[in-house]
Amino acid sequence: MRERFQEELDGVSSTLVEMAGLVKIAIENATTALLTADLTLAEKVIAEDLVIDQIQHDLDARTISLIAQQGPVATDLRTLVTSLRMSADLERMGDLAHHIAKSARMRYPSTAVPPELSLTIEEMSRVCVKIIEKVALVIKNRDTERALELERDDDEIDGLHRKIIQTLLDPNWKHGVETAIDMTLLGRYYERCADHAVSIARRVYFLVTGRYANENS
Amino acid sequence: MRERFQEELDGVSSTLVEMAGLVKIAIENATTALLTADLTLAEKVIAEDLVIDQIQHDLDARTISLIAQQGPVATDLRTLVTSLRMSADLERMGDLAHHIAKSARMRYPSTAVPPELSLTIEEMSRVCVKIIEKVALVIKNRDTERALELERDDDEIDGLHRKIIQTLLDPNWKHGVETAIDMTLLGRYYERCADHAVSIARRVYFLVTGRYANENS
Repeated sequence: MRERFQEELDGVSSTLVEMAGLVKIAIENATTALLTADLTLAEKVIAEDLVIDQIQHDLDARTISLIAQQGPVATDLRTLVTSLRMSADLERMGDLAHHIAKSARMRYPSTAVPPELSLTIEEMSRVCVKIIEKVALVIKNRDTERALELERDDDEIDGLHRKIIQTLLDPNWKHGVETAIDMTLLGRYYERCADHAVSIARRVYFLVTGRYANENS
Repeated sequence: MRERFQEELDGVSSTLVEMAGLVKIAIENATTALLTADLTLAEKVIAEDLVIDQIQHDLDARTISLIAQQGPVATDLRTLVTSLRMSADLERMGDLAHHIAKSARMRYPSTAVPPELSLTIEEMSRVCVKIIEKVALVIKNRDTERALELERDDDEIDGLHRKIIQTLLDPNWKHGVETAIDMTLLGRYYERCADHAVSIARRVYFLVTGRYANENS
């Protein structure tokens, strides 16, 4: 009985890792669509967000039915409740990739990102993807060391976000208010995506250690 | 035993209603701070967000311990899981009020909002507060009619958000990129706050009816 339950718990964890994998691909593709004005790729990200939503839906139903059938207490219950929260974070991260793809689609056949910000957006995406890869390992291996690393990676995202705002405020900014609005929102989407990954890492950290990771950031 | 458990469930619901009340006050005060450059009030909203966070923390601990002790199934379990999700929505709504207050503080002693957008922000806040008041009643009375109303109220928020963007894109916009960035983010904070309220209403609707409210928006 216990063995069967452990298998179910492992299955929940694997599905969360699978969701993280899909979110990672979504962010990568949304960024490519954004920087190369690739409408087909943007549409693909938008359509595939429904897949992530459906996985979350099924996973949550499975998780709740496990709670109902097994009546877990203590660590098992906390693991399942934490899974519900992590799936919500991952679903939201998928939404943010979807928002980025929608921004690409809205500006097609132009690109939403002006040349002087392409590299910064590319870098934000790169750090965001690194964070998502790490968070998948944090979930998979309950790796608390790596969970702590994510706090620092998040500072990197915040620095890049500030760099975008500084570029927009530069007196030489020549792309007008519409592009500034796009860039403000795009910067925020990547930043929020990373925030959710950090939340997941903190949840795992707390689950494993019973202590809070750095809550200052 | 059942009676005691029902009392506990009612207590969880009351605490959610209490959280909604605090979020409502936070949005009202943050908006006043924003429009009148009231630093003291902005600081108050920022400080009081910790109270909302603490209530969520305690409520979730209570909810999880109820699940552990009572081993609820079917509707009772779904009610408790939904409570965990609603408390997360309300906590996030508090964060968004906090963000609005921080924007007021950052621009002090100026106001972040230029005169031609004051009324629109006031209106966004008013609709947002109306939505939060309704969602408190939806939680309290499991009022599915009102839950459906919130979908329409949310359209009002989206319309106001579009109005802000249109104002920023008007060739006569004379407040520069920094104010445009502020207004883009402020518009998004109110919009997201309303989105979370709509999520709560949908959760209650599903809990009561077993069907989804309008998922198109």
